[in-house]
Amino acid sequence: MPSPLPDPATLDKRKTQARSWFEKLRDDISAAFEAVEDDLPATAPLGGRAPGRFVRTPWTRVGGPDGGGGVMAMMTGRVFEKVGVHCSTVHGEFAPEFRKDIPGAESDPRFWASGISLIAHPQNPHVPAVHMNTRFVTTTRAWFGGGADLTPVLNRRRTQSDPDTIAFHAAMKAACDAHAKVAPYDKFKAWCDEYFFLKHRNEPRGIGGIFYDYLDTGDWEAEFAFTQAVGRAFLKIYPELMRKNFTTPWNDTEREEQLVRRGRYVEFNLLYDRGTIFGLRTGGNVESILSSMPPVVKWP
Amino acid sequence: MPSPLPDPATLDKRKTQARSWFEKLRDDISAAFEAVEDDLPATAPLGGRAPGRFVRTPWTRVGGPDGGGGVMAMMTGRVFEKVGVHCSTVHGEFAPEFRKDIPGAESDPRFWASGISLIAHPQNPHVPAVHMNTRFVTTTRAWFGGGADLTPVLNRRRTQSDPDTIAFHAAMKAACDAHAKVAPYDKFKAWCDEYFFLKHRNEPRGIGGIFYDYLDTGDWEAEFAFTQAVGRAFLKIYPELMRKNFTTPWNDTEREEQLVRRGRYVEFNLLYDRGTIFGLRTGGNVESILSSMPPVVKWP
Repeated sequence: MPSPLPDPATLDKRKTQARSWFEKLRDDISAAFEAVEDDLPATAPLGGRAPGRFVRTPWTRVGGPDGGGGVMAMMTGRVFEKVGVHCSTVHGEFAPEFRKDIPGAESDPRFWASGISLIAHPQNPHVPAVHMNTRFVTTTRAWFGGGADLTPVLNRRRTQSDPDTIAFHAAMKAACDAHAKVAPYDKFKAWCDEYFFLKHRNEPRGIGGIFYDYLDTGDWEAEFAFTQAVGRAFLKIYPELMRKNFTTPWNDTEREEQLVRRGRYVEFNLLYDRGTIFGLRTGGNVESILSSMPPVVKWP
Repeated sequence: MPSPLPDPATLDKRKTQARSWFEKLRDDISAAFEAVEDDLPATAPLGGRAPGRFVRTPWTRVGGPDGGGGVMAMMTGRVFEKVGVHCSTVHGEFAPEFRKDIPGAESDPRFWASGISLIAHPQNPHVPAVHMNTRFVTTTRAWFGGGADLTPVLNRRRTQSDPDTIAFHAAMKAACDAHAKVAPYDKFKAWCDEYFFLKHRNEPRGIGGIFYDYLDTGDWEAEFAFTQAVGRAFLKIYPELMRKNFTTPWNDTEREEQLVRRGRYVEFNLLYDRGTIFGLRTGGNVESILSSMPPVVKWP
């Protein structure tokens, strides 16, 4: 049941609050990830390399009624083989072919959207890859969407009984349960399992997490608090999982397993991911959209 | 203007002739490629390795009214980092969502299709990657489709003035010109440029070649002769281009350029290639369809 939009001043205030949060979260995550880079012991694999640092690249969106832009923040380091943490705030008009599929866009194609998106591909095959994204979108309606999901790359760790899996699910459950009125954990967990699934291979992308979209319950404050909770939960759990695993040595077989598993990630992103496909079709920032692609991949 | 199908006995004879040709061509190409592996001088890069040999894996298509199958032939060697030459002959019914888009399938969803498809990813960045595919399809209509296109992986050789580009285009033009009544070269060349184009990057996949589909002029014998000419032209020109380049040493920068360029190949196949997307959506043989993916790829 869609809620009516608030008055323009309130909506503007919410946009500003959401955007500020996403950018604050980006800064906090960047700092936390750089700290993980710093903390890799010299005795760990790749510990002799220099710690990585994020490089930020602003970009601007242009063309007709479209505007806004964002900042790509990319890092290649000794823990992160490739990680991107991007914020963007854009506005424009949906092309006719998309209007039907987007809530509130059929009567008026104008939209505004702000969000953070993150994909990390670690060097160490014992450290799982991860994805996190949250966003606030307005058309003639307004909603939050997002989620976070974990992709262990070693087959023996891609199980629901793995300690990392259990810890990640627990973190996401806690974020939902603290805002249970707007964030039903079981629903968001099942949505994640359904969304991050490679139909052509009949296999899940990772071990799951949460996924939600069109979150529009009438209680914006609670939805915003939940969105912040997802970000904070991610900010706490993922560096923990990295530190737990980042000193574990790996062998060539494990590296090969990682590179092949990354191929599934590519397949998912280009065949199914709505954000990727939508972004590429609508003239989004190609560098930013495809910055999620793994650094090295094998299809043997 | 669609031609009427011939009588069933004639159609059956044509199916058998087409299938036999594709399988004969596969055998000839396999032998030619193994000879290229054998002929790499010991002093060339990777010349100390053992020559590769094709491994054939038959597969069967099952499910409801669907049947048939094929043989995957894959080789990893010292000239070819990964090459697949596949034949398949399948029949079945198109799912309702595809019937509208396929000539002759709206009134009767049954189809039969036989073809050969080939993608080669060479070790040496100086040797261009290549794709070739020809097929004969019947619904309530019948047609040939296919083509061949070349993808040099070094930027400085991705030009229309490169000797390899000129030689490849000349080979395809000769195949068309010998059957000009059914194979207008300019049209098929332009179709190739249009099809193998990465819209999101506004760049061509390679340097082109020819592409054709729904070839149904009323002169089946000429169309079949042209299809054979495309296969023979490929069989002659590509081993020539390999031999011309396969002793050229390469450096790390060139290898990196190759691996990044292969990323564009992956993007094309998963975002745009009709055969790949159609195959994956219709429950085709995943291993066979995705065997076209490059062995190692980088998105830096």
